[in-house]
Amino acid sequence: MWVQALKRVMVGTPIPTSLAKHERLSRVTGLAVFASDALSSVAYATEAILLILILAGTAGLHLSLPIGLGIAALVAIVVTSYRQAILAYPQGGGAYVVTRENLGRYPSLVAGAALLIDYVLTVAVSVAAGIAAITSALPALYPYRVGLCVAGVVLVGLANLRGIRESGRLFAAPTYLFIGAYLLMIGTGLARWLWTGGPGALPPAGPEVFPGGEQLTLFLVLRAFASGCAALTGIEAVSDGVPAFRAPEAENARAVLAVLGVILVVLFLGITFLVTTLGLVPLETETINSQLAHRVFGDSPPYYLVQGVTTLILVMAANTSFADFPRLAFFLARDRFLPRQLANRGDRLAYSNGIIILGLLSILLLMVFGGDTHALIPLYAVGVFLSFTLKQASMVRYWVRRRGPGWLGGTSVQGVGATATGVVVLVIAVTKFTHGAWLVIALIPCLVLVFLAIHRHYEDVALQLSVDGLEPEPAAAAPIVLVLIGDVHRGVLAALRYARALSPAARAVYVEVDHDHTRRMEEKWAKWGSGTPLVVLRSPYRSVVGALLEYLDHLQQQAPGQLVTIILPEFVPARFWQHLLHNQTALMIKGALLFRQGVIVTNVPYHLKG
Amino acid sequence: MWVQALKRVMVGTPIPTSLAKHERLSRVTGLAVFASDALSSVAYATEAILLILILAGTAGLHLSLPIGLGIAALVAIVVTSYRQAILAYPQGGGAYVVTRENLGRYPSLVAGAALLIDYVLTVAVSVAAGIAAITSALPALYPYRVGLCVAGVVLVGLANLRGIRESGRLFAAPTYLFIGAYLLMIGTGLARWLWTGGPGALPPAGPEVFPGGEQLTLFLVLRAFASGCAALTGIEAVSDGVPAFRAPEAENARAVLAVLGVILVVLFLGITFLVTTLGLVPLETETINSQLAHRVFGDSPPYYLVQGVTTLILVMAANTSFADFPRLAFFLARDRFLPRQLANRGDRLAYSNGIIILGLLSILLLMVFGGDTHALIPLYAVGVFLSFTLKQASMVRYWVRRRGPGWLGGTSVQGVGATATGVVVLVIAVTKFTHGAWLVIALIPCLVLVFLAIHRHYEDVALQLSVDGLEPEPAAAAPIVLVLIGDVHRGVLAALRYARALSPAARAVYVEVDHDHTRRMEEKWAKWGSGTPLVVLRSPYRSVVGALLEYLDHLQQQAPGQLVTIILPEFVPARFWQHLLHNQTALMIKGALLFRQGVIVTNVPYHLKG
Repeated sequence: MWVQALKRVMVGTPIPTSLAKHERLSRVTGLAVFASDALSSVAYATEAILLILILAGTAGLHLSLPIGLGIAALVAIVVTSYRQAILAYPQGGGAYVVTRENLGRYPSLVAGAALLIDYVLTVAVSVAAGIAAITSALPALYPYRVGLCVAGVVLVGLANLRGIRESGRLFAAPTYLFIGAYLLMIGTGLARWLWTGGPGALPPAGPEVFPGGEQLTLFLVLRAFASGCAALTGIEAVSDGVPAFRAPEAENARAVLAVLGVILVVLFLGITFLVTTLGLVPLETETINSQLAHRVFGDSPPYYLVQGVTTLILVMAANTSFADFPRLAFFLARDRFLPRQLANRGDRLAYSNGIIILGLLSILLLMVFGGDTHALIPLYAVGVFLSFTLKQASMVRYWVRRRGPGWLGGTSVQGVGATATGVVVLVIAVTKFTHGAWLVIALIPCLVLVFLAIHRHYEDVALQLSVDGLEPEPAAAAPIVLVLIGDVHRGVLAALRYARALSPAARAVYVEVDHDHTRRMEEKWAKWGSGTPLVVLRSPYRSVVGALLEYLDHLQQQAPGQLVTIILPEFVPARFWQHLLHNQTALMIKGALLFRQGVIVTNVPYHLKG
Repeated sequence: MWVQALKRVMVGTPIPTSLAKHERLSRVTGLAVFASDALSSVAYATEAILLILILAGTAGLHLSLPIGLGIAALVAIVVTSYRQAILAYPQGGGAYVVTRENLGRYPSLVAGAALLIDYVLTVAVSVAAGIAAITSALPALYPYRVGLCVAGVVLVGLANLRGIRESGRLFAAPTYLFIGAYLLMIGTGLARWLWTGGPGALPPAGPEVFPGGEQLTLFLVLRAFASGCAALTGIEAVSDGVPAFRAPEAENARAVLAVLGVILVVLFLGITFLVTTLGLVPLETETINSQLAHRVFGDSPPYYLVQGVTTLILVMAANTSFADFPRLAFFLARDRFLPRQLANRGDRLAYSNGIIILGLLSILLLMVFGGDTHALIPLYAVGVFLSFTLKQASMVRYWVRRRGPGWLGGTSVQGVGATATGVVVLVIAVTKFTHGAWLVIALIPCLVLVFLAIHRHYEDVALQLSVDGLEPEPAAAAPIVLVLIGDVHRGVLAALRYARALSPAARAVYVEVDHDHTRRMEEKWAKWGSGTPLVVLRSPYRSVVGALLEYLDHLQQQAPGQLVTIILPEFVPARFWQHLLHNQTALMIKGALLFRQGVIVTNVPYHLKG
């Protein structure tokens, strides 16, 4: 339902009113559909902060709480400005489209490149974290994590290739289960802490105190903050998909976005608070969330419920990228920055191409980074925050240009948002640069250059093909028609009939392999050639192509400007494997003549029976 | 020189007398060229015997000497009968050709299948043994043996693809170095044993005595014998390549074959005797030959010389298969049992295809069997001995049919040979069946079935294409010419000019995507269409192909039997990557029309500038 809704946005067909009512999303189903990507980051964001702080030893871990509060403030800022943006773009608008309309080509291409990269990372990070939730619960599977990650991507990719029919109801169960399970875990943890008067009421953590190898500098704290910013990924989904909601669409979307922001902050801060209070320390084989669930619930069914819904919501988060990536690729291809086969309207192939590319790239990432969520985190979030910043900056421009009612409020909300996320982009870029962010920072301009090269090519072709100022040319003379033959058989006779139908002056051309064979050919031709002259080309090196090219040179010198049609008998076998047994010479000749001006090669198929 | 010589044999061109003298092989260079495959088996044959005997403990190892003598007798029998076969086939004749001429199609196909499989195994076994010689000397490389094996095959394959210019001189050095080094090792070993009165004069072996898990049954002894029969592989090379020798060709080849047999027996028995006398036991990480060289020479330069030349001769043995496999594939393809592109005369591609197939198959084998020579040995030799048996049985038939001078001697020599090798085939098949031989035994009939299926297809096509009894048909009516367009541009105008040149009644066909676009198209067409009628096809599902197929149905119903030509404007971009950006629709249409009768699709190329 949701993918269909987005597809409609993409394709631009109006939805029949009769269908709209029961297909559109309510607030409840809308939250389920759009929340998975944003909420799933709760599965790894706290751990991402701790993994940096721990570099300076356990002493610095308590800083995760103020860092968490900072990130919560950032969520509030982004949610506010995106809710306001919905008012301006009630038809929905992603960073690429909004930036293109307000800031122009180059910023929009940067946003496009950043988002494409981030969709790949979303798949990789979500699947890696989802598998980590499984291997935390079942440590015996830990050695197979890369294989499991690859299998996960393949599974989600295949489901998308076959075309899963998402429905609000299908998405509702895991999303609300996830929210419920996490609230239960946080609530139980807090209750045990409050009522028994301290963290001691929960079983103690393993290694209590140890020193780290690095100093607890401001830079390290900023790096931890930058890592935690992964919590904000996916928050833009609601504002991109406004038209999928029931009327009043904008109002419903804004309400859902507000609720989403609140839930995200509650879950993220709740986990961060408990983890810090309990003094949990990141381990290689068990995620922080799994450790927390273990501490709260022990090795009981609720623990396995938490791990299960964590995997589920992460798989759903990966799944959203499989809809977002081809959609953005469509917009870029429609604007001629990507190959046009990604923009074929109404063509499932366009989507399939996008899905396959996304799947392969994320598998590559997972294999290179060993299926480790936190090895991928430094690459993540640069793109998301760049797109936040560009979209909000676009919105500033939008309000300043219109100066309609509320423009001052709009400008200031978006200005604050753009500034805040812009600063975060810088923080992420600087603190995580050497840990992997450089790769994304280098990749974005490369992608933009590719977009521009593709665009230039299409523009150039359009110019070369333009009929503007073209004088009508005189009708072309009848082409010279040649039938290339190697033998006399029914396929050759069919080609000959066709050649004679095109031109009574058609000639047959035969390249001599050995003299005896030529004599036999001439005898057969006298009987079957219907009077068509046979031209025999000598080829000292037995090269059919070489002899043919020489003859073409000769013909084209004699009659410059006249088109030459070469007719090749071609077999169409009844079974697929039989193709391997035929037409190799025809292929070679086609290849050799591909770049030759004034020559047109036509295969006349002869259909073989099984 | 040698490959060229064989190529000449294959292609059948007479060699100009002026060149023949200095290109043909003398006895000395001939031995160098043809001996590597046969002699290289000395590197693993003794160990292959010991590895089976050791299953019954060290107590049975002394049986390797009588087994070795049995194999030496077999060498004598095969050499004698093959020397005699040279008299009958002085033009050279492999098992496939000789069997085909004397026993007919099915036995020859069995020989062909057996040999193709064995060429793949020769590459795999030789490269694995060559790498084992290296890792025995440099144990640090042992963990990388599979990678090294793959690299070895790729190296030899690439050298063959680029076309190495073998010369007798190039081959002479490693072959004679190998013979010299091995004679030195055996001689030194024997001398130390004789002069000092016993094996004790050499440093003692490691684990002296241990019991095995199996009984020392006759079956186990026969299995050890079957494994050792790998020593005979490659012995047929001389008789296959007689015309490569200087005149008198047959006489020189027979002399070389005799010398080769003697050297093979001396090296093989020498090694087997010393290894048995010293009580050497097979180890996983060091070959028996390396152990022997260590015991004789210590860790001195001669030791490394032995290991080095062992690797060299094994690489050369693998190299011979890269010439033999495509040559046999040529014969099979010429007789229409393999795809004809393997038989293109004078075409390097035919050879390249064979080389690539052989390389990939042997890499697959090496990877599946972990680069372990002795895991591959049970698969080996079945094919070789089957081809020995079939060739010698063919020679019996040959002599019996002719009854010319010497027919009785010929019959008996070949009869003894065929019986001996036939019994060995049975012994190998039975004793090694469960250890891997079943794979080859199952594969041979499968390959024969593939040969026959390909043959049937070509025969069937020839029948379908035959013009025998065909009545001359009336000339074809002028075809219906359609230009399929999606826009108006120079490429479309070029296609239109061509269409009008073919038929003044040509029509342009446009599939409507949306109504506004159609109106614009019609306006443009009024200006640029040169009066050619424009047919607009409505397509509710935006499927260009579907609408086109419907229109074709309609046309072909109206004018049954009349050919329809569909002209597609095609772009030829200046750069390779730009192909990805064009012609996708044209490709799809071609695919959809491939199996449609009476429709001919012609691309009119429009050449784009860089």
